[in-house]
Amino acid sequence: MNPLITLTTDFGSSDTFVAVMKGVMLSICPAARFIDLTHDIPPHDVMAGAIALESACEYFPAGAIHLAVVDPGVGADRAALAIETGRAIFVGPDNGLFSLVLQRASLKRAVALTNERWHRQPVSATFHGRDIFAPVAAHLANGASFDELGDPVDDLTTLMTPTPIISNTRIEAHVMSIDRFGNLVTDLIAEDLSNWLRRRSALEPIAASSPSRALETEVVIRIGGQEIRGLRRTFADVNAGEPIAYIGSGGRIEIAVNSGSAAEFLEAEIGDALGIEMAGTSSRRRTPS
Amino acid sequence: MNPLITLTTDFGSSDTFVAVMKGVMLSICPAARFIDLTHDIPPHDVMAGAIALESACEYFPAGAIHLAVVDPGVGADRAALAIETGRAIFVGPDNGLFSLVLQRASLKRAVALTNERWHRQPVSATFHGRDIFAPVAAHLANGASFDELGDPVDDLTTLMTPTPIISNTRIEAHVMSIDRFGNLVTDLIAEDLSNWLRRRSALEPIAASSPSRALETEVVIRIGGQEIRGLRRTFADVNAGEPIAYIGSGGRIEIAVNSGSAAEFLEAEIGDALGIEMAGTSSRRRTPS
Amino acid sequence: MNPLITLTTDFGSSDTFVAVMKGVMLSICPAARFIDLTHDIPPHDVMAGAIALESACEYFPAGAIHLAVVDPGVGADRAALAIETGRAIFVGPDNGLFSLVLQRASLKRAVALTNERWHRQPVSATFHGRDIFAPVAAHLANGASFDELGDPVDDLTTLMTPTPIISNTRIEAHVMSIDRFGNLVTDLIAEDLSNWLRRRSALEPIAASSPSRALETEVVIRIGGQEIRGLRRTFADVNAGEPIAYIGSGGRIEIAVNSGSAAEFLEAEIGDALGIEMAGTSSRRRTPS
Repeated sequence: MNPLITLTTDFGSSDTFVAVMKGVMLSICPAARFIDLTHDIPPHDVMAGAIALESACEYFPAGAIHLAVVDPGVGADRAALAIETGRAIFVGPDNGLFSLVLQRASLKRAVALTNERWHRQPVSATFHGRDIFAPVAAHLANGASFDELGDPVDDLTTLMTPTPIISNTRIEAHVMSIDRFGNLVTDLIAEDLSNWLRRRSALEPIAASSPSRALETEVVIRIGGQEIRGLRRTFADVNAGEPIAYIGSGGRIEIAVNSGSAAEFLEAEIGDALGIEMAGTSSRRRTPS
Repeated sequence: MNPLITLTTDFGSSDTFVAVMKGVMLSICPAARFIDLTHDIPPHDVMAGAIALESACEYFPAGAIHLAVVDPGVGADRAALAIETGRAIFVGPDNGLFSLVLQRASLKRAVALTNERWHRQPVSATFHGRDIFAPVAAHLANGASFDELGDPVDDLTTLMTPTPIISNTRIEAHVMSIDRFGNLVTDLIAEDLSNWLRRRSALEPIAASSPSRALETEVVIRIGGQEIRGLRRTFADVNAGEPIAYIGSGGRIEIAVNSGSAAEFLEAEIGDALGIEMAGTSSRRRTPS
Repeated sequence: MNPLITLTTDFGSSDTFVAVMKGVMLSICPAARFIDLTHDIPPHDVMAGAIALESACEYFPAGAIHLAVVDPGVGADRAALAIETGRAIFVGPDNGLFSLVLQRASLKRAVALTNERWHRQPVSATFHGRDIFAPVAAHLANGASFDELGDPVDDLTTLMTPTPIISNTRIEAHVMSIDRFGNLVTDLIAEDLSNWLRRRSALEPIAASSPSRALETEVVIRIGGQEIRGLRRTFADVNAGEPIAYIGSGGRIEIAVNSGSAAEFLEAEIGDALGIEMAGTSSRRRTPS
């Protein structure tokens, strides 16, 4: 099967930067096939690039080469990397772009792309996507040996990852990204919420309205002055225009508005905090039976 | 030849939803090739998706698989479909998305995608594009049998299609879509206009300025306070900045402005009405010879 | 290897025009592979299309077919072209779209696409991309002979190319394009600047602060009320928010702002003038030692 290379950049689609990289790769590896992850990462937003890579790379066949260029430090002293995990290869700058992907994957090895034999000459100071990353990705697609690319690297740059603050009585989660529909993707992984709910309910058993209802229906989420009660399955479980919390397709807690935009409705932005508590607890305290 | 899958969604290109679907499909059918129809369908706008599919699918080779996901009812009770016509296969939600395509094509069979064997597990409640539609499209590309996908469906959801109102003396057409250039595509099919003009001119023969001129030059179109006389061939047949009516490349009557935007010039929006009459008729009545 | 066709248009990605052209091409040449250069050329902006083609085509493998449709005169009397250079084939309207590419390439032959055998019938008056250019590109990908496409053309339409005005003491360059990052690409080719600096310094040797510094560090660029001194290597060579001049990856002088947008910072638009002089000269004159 022809080698598969995905591309993730902040280059947009109005300029020809992406096409130039594909042309360079096809000149080296004529059989390469390309899938665009996205080129609409906000300029220089390495975290957004890291989130995009994390959201998509796991769905690709084993052996795929993921080329990513969000590179505000191009031409300065950040290293250029090729990384091999158990399933895939990543090529791009050492600025944290791959740090979310690497939290989930088993790192096999990483090399700094110091061997100029695999670069396009002369290497420009401002477009390493064309001159270093694309050529290296294409040579890897041709079967070039990882060891020949450069020197092993132990210490990869990592980003400060958005993380919920979890206490006994409350979780503070954060809006990690906002998708095209205005849905808010939070940094709270559904499994972590479930575990917290189980611990919480063991400590202080609540009088669930029905014992068969899942703990997730007992949750209260506060964001943008609104209170959302319980996790639901899908958008249509509330009326049009109403907010809803649910486990998103990426396994994180998300907030949406049925047939609308949660980002608009809640005036939410990336980084905003959500407060999450268990329903009933505090009110039971206030009105003891 | 490698199997061909087209994609039409309202997912945009900033998120990785489309790439995720492609990754899922390549994991099932590594030889699949993809063509993006468009991913810029306005969110949840099933009609716009139906119009996009109708405008493009007929140009693809026989046997192409057209995957389309504009799916406001995801996770609720709308069915998931695979449809076979004489020329192609369509996969997507049963919400009318394929109803314009099916007006032109001969339906061979349709099945509800109830057989979970062909789905990605676990199936999320909010991203059937990834978990149901893409996997089924890829299995079909691999040669999976239509009968195994699920139960036959007889009654497909259809959209209320925009349709011109045709009387003896007047046609009321409507703006069906607006393209990037601001050209207005109407719901009036050129052939229907020609037939109307022929019937009209047989009933009440008009003194065409030249008997050799086509009836189409005798038409008067009123929209946005402007009056456009006659159909022309192409944009350059009027001066820059002037409006023009013509038979569009999709066989419908369109309104454009040479070197400009008809949508801006006429402040037109989707759904706006156009009045179409035959020139001379009413004025001849007012001033009988 | 499967034939490679690139596409450059002003069709945007919201409509299905591009997909329709790909469907038509796949119907003629099922093995064709496509790379999108860009479809976001501003509507009817032939010069922007010419600049895009110039910026990217050279990076593609020899033998690639470059299909380009920015075609405000569609259906009127401009000719339709196929052009062969030493390395590639170009197909599109004869309106100057290929004139920048042809300044760099050796023209082998050009033909007007007059032989209707290779067109899709009936040919519409408004979408030659679908009916003439795409079919011809696909037939060429199938190996159709150039001579059969139509009659040879000698006199191709050329655009007035943006060109710097170079005098003994000063260069007036112009903003030729602005990329997604707000970087300004000028019409001044770095090599032309170097040659001018060498001639200039031979005429009137300057007291460079260090004899080992390149002449390029002695340059002063004035644009938008700002003065930028010296060419640098890459963005990070100045502080965040500061403007910088450098040799862009396409070999032209560019202006950027580190971690910002030069277009916003300098309120620059395409066509704006930059004044370029040699540092020290005028000030030395004013204060003779």
